[in-house]
Order: sequence, then C-alpha cells, then structure tokens
Amino acid sequence: MELRIDRQALVPVVQQIVDALAIWIRQDAVEPGTRLPSIRQLARQNLLSQASVHEACQRLVAQGLLASRHGSSFFVAPAVSDAGATAEEAWLPGVSSAPADPTHQALKLGCGGLPESWRESDDLGYAIRQVSRTDMAGLFNYGPPLGLPALREQLSRRLKQFEIDADENRILTTTGALHGLDLIVRTLLPPGCCVVVESPGYPKLFDLLRLHKIDMLELPRTSRGPDVDALQCLLAIHRPSAIFINSTCHNPTGSNLIPAVAQRLLQLARKHAMLVIEDDVYADFQGATRARLAALDAEVIYLGSFSKTLSSSLRVGFMAAAPSVIARLGEVKAITCMGGSRFAESVLAKLLANGAYRKLAQRQRQRLNADMAVALQLLEDADWKVFGKPSGGLFIWARPPLCDYAELQRMARRCGVQLSSRTRFSPSGADTDWLRINVAYARDPKAQAFFRATALDRPQVS
Amino acid sequence: MELRIDRQALVPVVQQIVDALAIWIRQDAVEPGTRLPSIRQLARQNLLSQASVHEACQRLVAQGLLASRHGSSFFVAPAVSDAGATAEEAWLPGVSSAPADPTHQALKLGCGGLPESWRESDDLGYAIRQVSRTDMAGLFNYGPPLGLPALREQLSRRLKQFEIDADENRILTTTGALHGLDLIVRTLLPPGCCVVVESPGYPKLFDLLRLHKIDMLELPRTSRGPDVDALQCLLAIHRPSAIFINSTCHNPTGSNLIPAVAQRLLQLARKHAMLVIEDDVYADFQGATRARLAALDAEVIYLGSFSKTLSSSLRVGFMAAAPSVIARLGEVKAITCMGGSRFAESVLAKLLANGAYRKLAQRQRQRLNADMAVALQLLEDADWKVFGKPSGGLFIWARPPLCDYAELQRMARRCGVQLSSRTRFSPSGADTDWLRINVAYARDPKAQAFFRATALDRPQVS
Repeated sequence: MELRIDRQALVPVVQQIVDALAIWIRQDAVEPGTRLPSIRQLARQNLLSQASVHEACQRLVAQGLLASRHGSSFFVAPAVSDAGATAEEAWLPGVSSAPADPTHQALKLGCGGLPESWRESDDLGYAIRQVSRTDMAGLFNYGPPLGLPALREQLSRRLKQFEIDADENRILTTTGALHGLDLIVRTLLPPGCCVVVESPGYPKLFDLLRLHKIDMLELPRTSRGPDVDALQCLLAIHRPSAIFINSTCHNPTGSNLIPAVAQRLLQLARKHAMLVIEDDVYADFQGATRARLAALDAEVIYLGSFSKTLSSSLRVGFMAAAPSVIARLGEVKAITCMGGSRFAESVLAKLLANGAYRKLAQRQRQRLNADMAVALQLLEDADWKVFGKPSGGLFIWARPPLCDYAELQRMARRCGVQLSSRTRFSPSGADTDWLRINVAYARDPKAQAFFRATALDRPQVS
Repeated sequence: MELRIDRQALVPVVQQIVDALAIWIRQDAVEPGTRLPSIRQLARQNLLSQASVHEACQRLVAQGLLASRHGSSFFVAPAVSDAGATAEEAWLPGVSSAPADPTHQALKLGCGGLPESWRESDDLGYAIRQVSRTDMAGLFNYGPPLGLPALREQLSRRLKQFEIDADENRILTTTGALHGLDLIVRTLLPPGCCVVVESPGYPKLFDLLRLHKIDMLELPRTSRGPDVDALQCLLAIHRPSAIFINSTCHNPTGSNLIPAVAQRLLQLARKHAMLVIEDDVYADFQGATRARLAALDAEVIYLGSFSKTLSSSLRVGFMAAAPSVIARLGEVKAITCMGGSRFAESVLAKLLANGAYRKLAQRQRQRLNADMAVALQLLEDADWKVFGKPSGGLFIWARPPLCDYAELQRMARRCGVQLSSRTRFSPSGADTDWLRINVAYARDPKAQAFFRATALDRPQVS
C-alpha cells in the first residue's frame, strides 16, 4: 500500500500516515474486518520507521477507525455512528444546525476552526505527560485567579511581539476567549446599556449580549476594518458603552483592520468614552505584522486564545487590559469559578517557553497561506464574489453567483458539503447571500465539486 | 541523578534533558550554587551522549537556571522570586488573609482542602497520559456543553449509589461546583430576590450572592442540619426564592443532615415554592450512607465536585437536576464559556470507569476517619468545645477555652499555625469565637503545640 508521504510537507509524518490510512478506509469504503498490511510491510514499502507506522495505527484505533489484535495486527473497525461529533457540531458557532448529512461525512466548509487532521499531538502530548509526571502543584492545586505566573510571563513576552505592552499585572487567563467576553460583559457593562458590534460578526458574541439583555448597534464591517464613517453617524445618535472589534482575520470576513481605521476608531472611542474590546482569537493565523488596537491604546481590552491553533479542549485563553480592570475581572473570575485549570495553564506555559507553540503556529500559518491562494483561485474560477481578498488566515467571505439559498443548500448536500449559517452572523438575525468559507476545507474534492456545481448552474447572461 | 528520558517520545532528547533538570532545580528548590553532577557522570548514568547533556546545560544557562564556569562545570543559578505561590494562598477560600508567615511554612490548620501530601498522582497521571496518547478528540476538540457523554454516564452510576436517580439528561458537567452555583444564580434567581443560606456557611457562596446583589437570610446550622424551626419562622415573614444547603460534611461545622430534618426541610420548600440547592462537594469524604435531599426530591438541584478528592487543578464538577433545568443551565454554560475541558472530562471518565477514583476516595475516607478521632481527642484534652461530633469528613467546628482572638492569633503564629477566618463563615461578616479545624492537619506537631498552648493559657477558674 503506497501512502505517498511528503517529506517536505509541514505536516508531521505520523499525521500524514494517519490521514492516508483514514482516507483509504473512508473513501475506498473498505470492508470492516479487512486486515491492514503488517507494520513492517507498510514501513518498508513507504520508507518509514516502524515506530511511526505503529503510532499512526494506534491513533486510528483511538479514533475508532481501526481495531487491533494483541496490539500488533490491525483491522478496519466496524463502522461507527458519528453521533458524538454531530452533537458537538450542533453547538459549534456559526455552523448551520440543519439536519446532519445522512452519510455523516459532510465537509464543514463553513466552520470556524481547523480540521482535526491539522492538529498536531506530539508537542502537546509531550508537555501534558511532562506536567503529569513532574509538576505536582500543576496536577493538584487550584491556580491563582489571575492565572499561573509562568504562563502570564510567557503571554507578556508574546504580546510584546504584537507591540502590545502588557506586563504581568495587565494579564488575566480565562478558560477561552468567550469566558473573557463573559467576564467583561457581566462586570463592566451595565444591564440595559447598548454596545456597537460588527456586522457581519461573531455569532457567539451576539448570543452572549442577548443573554445579558444588552442592545446591539450594528456597524458594517468593510475589508479595511469597521466602517468608521458609519460609526461616527451612530455616535451622533446613540451613547454605546462599548465596541467589540475583531482586528485580524475577522470572523466571518477574514479581513484585517488597517492602521488608519484603527487610529480613527480609537479617536472616536476616546471622544465618546466608549470601552474598546479587541477580540483577537485568530491572531496567530496572521502573525505579528498587523495593526492591533491594544498596541495603540493601553485602555483597550485585548482577548486571545489557544483554542484555534493548539487545542480547543484545554480551554485556555487570556486577556490584557489596564491593571485596575484586570484586578476587577480577576476578582469576578475568582468568585464565579475559583480560577482556570492550573494543569492546562502549566502545559501552555511549557509549550510557549520551549518554542513548540511558536513553531506550530508558524506551520499552520504557512499551510493556511497556501490554502488561501488555492481557495481564492477556486472561487474566482467559479465566479464567486469575494469580500476583500484576505491575505492569509482562515476565512473568506464570499457570495456565490447563484442567489437562491435553498437551491444552494440542495447542491451543497449533493456534494456532501455543509454551509455556514445564513442568519447567525447578523446581530439582528437577518438573511445574507454571503457564505463563510474556511480555506482549510476548500481544496477538499467535495468543496471543489460544490464550487464547480455553483458555476455550472449559474444563469447564463445572454 | 536519574533523568527518566523517554526514548519513544517524539520530543528531542536534549529538550527532555532540559525539562528534567529544570524541574529538579525548581521543584526540589535546590540551593543556588549547588554543583550539578559532571556532564560525563550525567551522560553515563542516563545512557546519553555527553554532547546532548552539554547542549541541554547550555540552554539552561541561557534560561537563567544554571550558571557555568569555564563552560564545563555547571551550578544552580541564584534563585528567582516565588511571589506566585504566596499570591495564590491569599485567594484560598475561608483562610485568613493575614500577612503570610515569614517562614512560608505556616500550617494551614483552618483550610478547606486536603494537604498536598495526601494527593495521589499515580492513577491520575496514568489516566492523563493515556488520554494524551490515544484520545485525539479529547486532546483537541470542544466538549459538548452538557459534558462528555462518557463522563455523564459514569456520574449517573455514581449518583445511584447515593440513591439519586439521575439519568444522563439530568446531568451537566461544570468546571467545579462553584461554576455550577454561578450558573444557578445567574440563570434561575431574579436579581433583587432573597435566598436562605446556612450560618455559619460557605464563604464563596456568600461572595457569589453578594456579587449578584442577592439578599441572604441567615439560617442557623445545627449539628443535625439546618434549623428547620428557624426556617419556618423565616418563611412566615420572607419569600425566599431558594435555599442553599450543605448536606454532608457541612462547611465549616462538619455536621451531616439527618433524614428527619431533610424531610421537614423539603416539605417547607415545596409549600413555599422555594428552590432547593444541595451543595455536596464533600460527599466522598462521607460515603453513601448519609441522607441526601436530591434522593428524596427530584426537583432538588444537586452539586458535586472532584476538586476536594482527586484534583483541584483539573476543574471538573457536575450538577444533577430536572431535565428542563439542565437544558437551560447547559445553554447558559454554552453561551458563556463554550463548555468544559474535554480533556479533563475524558480523564475523569477514565478514572471513574476503571474504579481508581472509587478506591482513592475510600483510602481518603479511612485516613480521615482515623485523623478525626485523633483531632477530637486533642481538642478534648485541650478543653475546646466541639460543635456536634462529626462522625467523619474533613472539618471540626470548635471553640477554644480562650476567647481573646488577638491573643489566640499571636499564639497560633508562635506555633506556626494559620487559623481560619473569624468573619468569612458568616453571611453578614459577623465575628465568631469558633474556628474551623481541618482534621488532616490537626495531628501535625505544630497544631498539637498550639492546642496545648491554648489549654495552658486558659484562665484558671478558682
């Protein structure tokens, strides 16, 4: 069996073996019980170490795709229902909760994260095992409410690369960026106030604000950042307490804030005493070269996360803000949940300190850049209209040539593709003709078939 | 010096050496200036190349942990400050935040958890490493908001032992019981309402209710549970929305609810449409033989946790309630923090499924029972008054023969003992002469010296 391992690729070899075998099992619909060639055979034929092949097979056992006998010979496992994944998907932000594709294999073209096959377990697994073996406080004790000092020190260093000056008393860890947003909303925003949000924007933020009965003022997002002229008009009429901004790799448009817009936005915020909250969870998909509001104004509250790059499971995010704000939010964090997971924070601190996280993010960025180019070309070939031209990151916001959403949905289902929600990116729940395209999924044959189908079905202009 | 290098790991050997040495320096708090074994010795003893060991030491010099002479012999560098550990202690619940003992060794006689020396790392560490090696979804993905099905299934089985009938749609995981309390308060209690709390009671609950601006009605705790006659009087005047009860191993008195009191409490709650919240975080210190409110009434909201027994660091707790309540709280959980740590929940599910947790709790229970007997004897010998006589668990609530708190504090400091707060166990912050004694610390020589000192200093009745 030829696995076609690419030794120049950024993806670790073991992961490539996992992917290749998974594709063989799923695509060729191999019969359950089929015996895999021996580890030795697979290794020899593909010039791999037996240890790598064995590790890959073990991971596939864990994923339920293979079964093993005596830990040495491997068989294709009986087909499993994908119920767990489906339950989870229904809660993933921004993804249509339409009935799942009956094959349970629908490509999540519109989803908000990286495919599981991109995740890398080596460094993370190693750090976890290290902490579990050696760091007894990390294994057992409560963490301090502001977060583990070792992690905050690392975060402080990372933020300096974004030109954000955040010493440790300006940093608070959270269990993901959404927890940070919740702390801000429940602590700093008076009930009944109104805030400015970008439209289209982050669905989970809208849910959170609705839960807190906070009114949202819609601010259009342009390809250069929020529409500051529109903001000026809003501020002539309303008195919002805060504004929420995605500076880099904006969800869902993929656009980046440019410095001129950032400057004007901050001027308006200062003039109107409006709190600025910068949600930068996709920061590491773009690198350090983009404008950040928090780099220009120390009063901005900045939010980051490791859920998009390293792991969504560990639940580690953070925020940077003025020390008085951090102290207040830290107190509310302590009162409402004691503190974050000291274990997870120790693992993160380790990965930041030894450089493994930096390299992981770099690899993901390079892969995304390559996939972005491919995706933009595919959309252009299929005559889709693209909102701005993201220069990197995870998302493209694009409009198909065909505007009948129901027909588009049917087409997507036929191709085995799941589309992003039509209404969840709007604070008011309004329909949109635009779709969020996750570039990490766009080169998949199912996505390509879908793009081609939309082009073919387009009404011909005579 | 044994470095425990894992040759199967994908992490480079040099990095493993760096990690092992750094842990040795930090964890064992090795004296600055201590000389490292020679490169040759370290290499030979651990079957490593001298070049690898040398490279690792050089990296540790760059990190400021080692210093070198002539680039060949290595010493532990001058110590870094340990501010983090002290800062953390100041946040522990119910512990006086008086200036820390200068030796940093004060015995936390009044604290709310087990000593670190009681914690057991073998089973937990093993489960963590298993999940990290084999469960890719556990390592990377978001967990479902209600909690991992495998964990909820195990919790359902455990609750059956307490005669609580909780199938999986009645269970929600939380990041600790305090997170559960916060979800209840923010979702089910209208702002401005009043609730009944036990006095003395759990300080963090009082903080939480104050944060939410909810009024507290004080209900005296007796050694048989809350004072139900006093409750009846309260209900004649007030209309509380809810009542919060510690059924077993009550914090801080260590008392258990008896069935007759439980029955009357539930009758009153039903009659006055009052929500009953049963906080049972110390459940496993008592075992399954005690009365639980949730076993008698399916409308009770029951809260549990693994922070007291297994690990406070992983942040896993849970609640059981009516399916409609669980659905509503699960939605708020999803909106405010996405969900818990799938990793931590997978680890817990494993430990519950393989019986390791059950055995751990049993061992802790046996040790606590022995320590309880010793502590009660010590207090009796020193003429302290004991509130009820707890038949197990972690706490004794006791009053020293000497009532001058300032003098008692001086005495405690001289003996190297840290006392519980004088005011935090009261919802109104009133002073008390009673102290919470953690039996796991009471046989320590420092505690024994303190008890003896209070007996000697007692004014002699002529």
